Amino acid sequence: MAFDITSAFRPGLPVAAEPWRPVPRFSFVGGHNDPDSVPAAGLAEAAVTSIGRRGRDIASYNLGGSPLGLQELRDVIADTLSTRASMACDTDQVLVTSGSLQALDLVNGLFLEPGDTVLVEEATYGGTLTRLAALAVRAVGVPLDEDGLVPGGVSETLDRLAAEGVRPKFLYTIPTVQNPTGTVLGVERRRELLAIARDRDLVVFEDDCYADLTWSGERPPALRSLDGGSDHVVYCGSYSKTIAPSIRIGFIVADGSVIAQLSALKTDGGTGALEQLALAEYAAASFDAHVDALTSALETKCDAMIDAVRSRFGDAVEVRRPEGGIYVWLRFGPEVDTTALVEPAAAAGIEFNPGAGWMTDPAAGRRHLRLCFGHLDEATIAAGVAALADVVAATTSVELPAAGGRVG
Amino acid sequence: MAFDITSAFRPGLPVAAEPWRPVPRFSFVGGHNDPDSVPAAGLAEAAVTSIGRRGRDIASYNLGGSPLGLQELRDVIADTLSTRASMACDTDQVLVTSGSLQALDLVNGLFLEPGDTVLVEEATYGGTLTRLAALAVRAVGVPLDEDGLVPGGVSETLDRLAAEGVRPKFLYTIPTVQNPTGTVLGVERRRELLAIARDRDLVVFEDDCYADLTWSGERPPALRSLDGGSDHVVYCGSYSKTIAPSIRIGFIVADGSVIAQLSALKTDGGTGALEQLALAEYAAASFDAHVDALTSALETKCDAMIDAVRSRFGDAVEVRRPEGGIYVWLRFGPEVDTTALVEPAAAAGIEFNPGAGWMTDPAAGRRHLRLCFGHLDEATIAAGVAALADVVAATTSVELPAAGGRVG
Repeated sequence: MAFDITSAFRPGLPVAAEPWRPVPRFSFVGGHNDPDSVPAAGLAEAAVTSIGRRGRDIASYNLGGSPLGLQELRDVIADTLSTRASMACDTDQVLVTSGSLQALDLVNGLFLEPGDTVLVEEATYGGTLTRLAALAVRAVGVPLDEDGLVPGGVSETLDRLAAEGVRPKFLYTIPTVQNPTGTVLGVERRRELLAIARDRDLVVFEDDCYADLTWSGERPPALRSLDGGSDHVVYCGSYSKTIAPSIRIGFIVADGSVIAQLSALKTDGGTGALEQLALAEYAAASFDAHVDALTSALETKCDAMIDAVRSRFGDAVEVRRPEGGIYVWLRFGPEVDTTALVEPAAAAGIEFNPGAGWMTDPAAGRRHLRLCFGHLDEATIAAGVAALADVVAATTSVELPAAGGRVG
Repeated sequence: MAFDITSAFRPGLPVAAEPWRPVPRFSFVGGHNDPDSVPAAGLAEAAVTSIGRRGRDIASYNLGGSPLGLQELRDVIADTLSTRASMACDTDQVLVTSGSLQALDLVNGLFLEPGDTVLVEEATYGGTLTRLAALAVRAVGVPLDEDGLVPGGVSETLDRLAAEGVRPKFLYTIPTVQNPTGTVLGVERRRELLAIARDRDLVVFEDDCYADLTWSGERPPALRSLDGGSDHVVYCGSYSKTIAPSIRIGFIVADGSVIAQLSALKTDGGTGALEQLALAEYAAASFDAHVDALTSALETKCDAMIDAVRSRFGDAVEVRRPEGGIYVWLRFGPEVDTTALVEPAAAAGIEFNPGAGWMTDPAAGRRHLRLCFGHLDEATIAAGVAALADVVAATTSVELPAAGGRVG
């Protein structure tokens, strides 16, 4: 009898990956970015310069330096956070990670056990929700409004959980260019939230991956920077959204005791040296100018997306113009289930993120979907939204404006 | 009262990392490689060429391609394995990983639950033993001799465990340039081992990270290639030892069903694109010539190490010349505890891997230590071994040859 190796797999695995298929024409998923804006030539030049300087060191793990990451890169990260997020940190409080997804895994690994509870925004990054589910950790949603996280909602949720005898291990929040809603939490709410954290001994895990992509070019001070040294906040960021998602460099900023423990959990032999070298060299000279140009290009795409959604969907969806980033978050009426749109949309060459995976209440999520516009040109955005409107018109009872019936 | 964030950490964490210290003069630890041999200039040139060709694609996760890894790199891996390890595979059976350490984590995550048992060689890679311990998985040693793993020992161990009602989830083995003993398992033993695997439905996890570094330039066929399509073997390899350890590219080769499931567990957003691009471009043209030159340089270092150990330690240690690789494995008499040598050695500017972390029986391990010679020049190897002999002479009752008393 033939041996079936799958019979040796452990129980409880996620569904196996489907064979890869080429990206469809109207791909509104994921966190891809603008191919016209990625600094490929600058990175190539930076790679040559930095490898020329440090080439022999690639013979050693971590280039012969600290497992926290390349010193020059941690210097750049600390400098950038100081200028852009009003956050002072020394480089021993910075741990370079292989993308912010590894940062999520490390921070989860530091705090969480199966059966634990964490607070998240009621609509949040889907990758965080799937990670928490895989860890058998309960994610409890706290309310959002048009200005972002509602601090009073955090207190109320903590009270409600305390009555059940539950104490959340942390609050995971995306305060700046919230994913998926695109809001930026104001300074006043940030202070309120931190007062609650101090009052309730609540750890805050601040995911600031999109924070540099505001249209205004301004970021409020990071929660961590407003914490007044009380060390409730573990911070993470990424270069995926500002430089390129296929380059896997993220970072965690936290108290030294946290960084030392995370470093012990990071048993990967270090984050890739070529990417750290090239990025440090490039970003030291060019980060600010690059991000200015990138956000300007993204804002143009955002306007194209908002125009297309409003013209094709009219009153059938609620959509707010985000304050930055690469996505919009659509809300349909209760008669629409966006999960049911996935298959007919795929048949029309469209992919999007259905909201059920992006909200703690999947039933509420089914009225939503997320559309990323970062990597598509304006004409493709318009055509793709029109095509999506056709799918909605064909498969639901939603009434759309006349223009929604045809791709132009 | 000040908030102590460490009070929110989960229980059971590993010991926090010590602050990083610069590498001492005589660093015999780790898997560092020869700084004179790393192809820094070739990688820089390859980075420029490949980024020039694929630059816009870095705007998308996985360069817009399969999450299994860059197609060009999987082509190179498949070609190299076909020529060098007699292993035919198609690229859908290849998953690129962020170093072989991620490969270990993924394969462990596919098969293992707390309380499980795996077989390993009685002396094996310390990073595997610490990973298994962290997963609460029992590692049971199977015997090694001067020709590597003893197949009969696998059968006997399976029988013994079966009598306890225990069925190991897999055998983890490093058949080619075994770590730490440096042996290469012959074809006959490979066939015997696979017959046992088929007879007992035993999954084999073949770690071939050092396999290209044989002095002869020859590798026996990989276990996976001898498996006759019965799919008992999950294979992993790495470019850390052949190209550079600070570049984090490894790979897994396995049946499609295994790869699809591993891909679902690999939730890291992809392995770094710059490293995949540069490596694929470089290796396609230059891998074989580079590895020939590298192994020649390493063999010279190996001879310097063996000479130094024999001249400084004489009959006080057993050491075999490895058949390739970057390390030697020393065995002292029962009166020596190599763990106790760590501190006095550090005071003398020496670091090494004590054997207790590299054997399933730590008591046996305490008679051993591993010395890596890949990144040191011949004079430093000689001086470092002399300095280590001085430490042994000063802190144990071992009698060393006269030359062992002084650094020359």
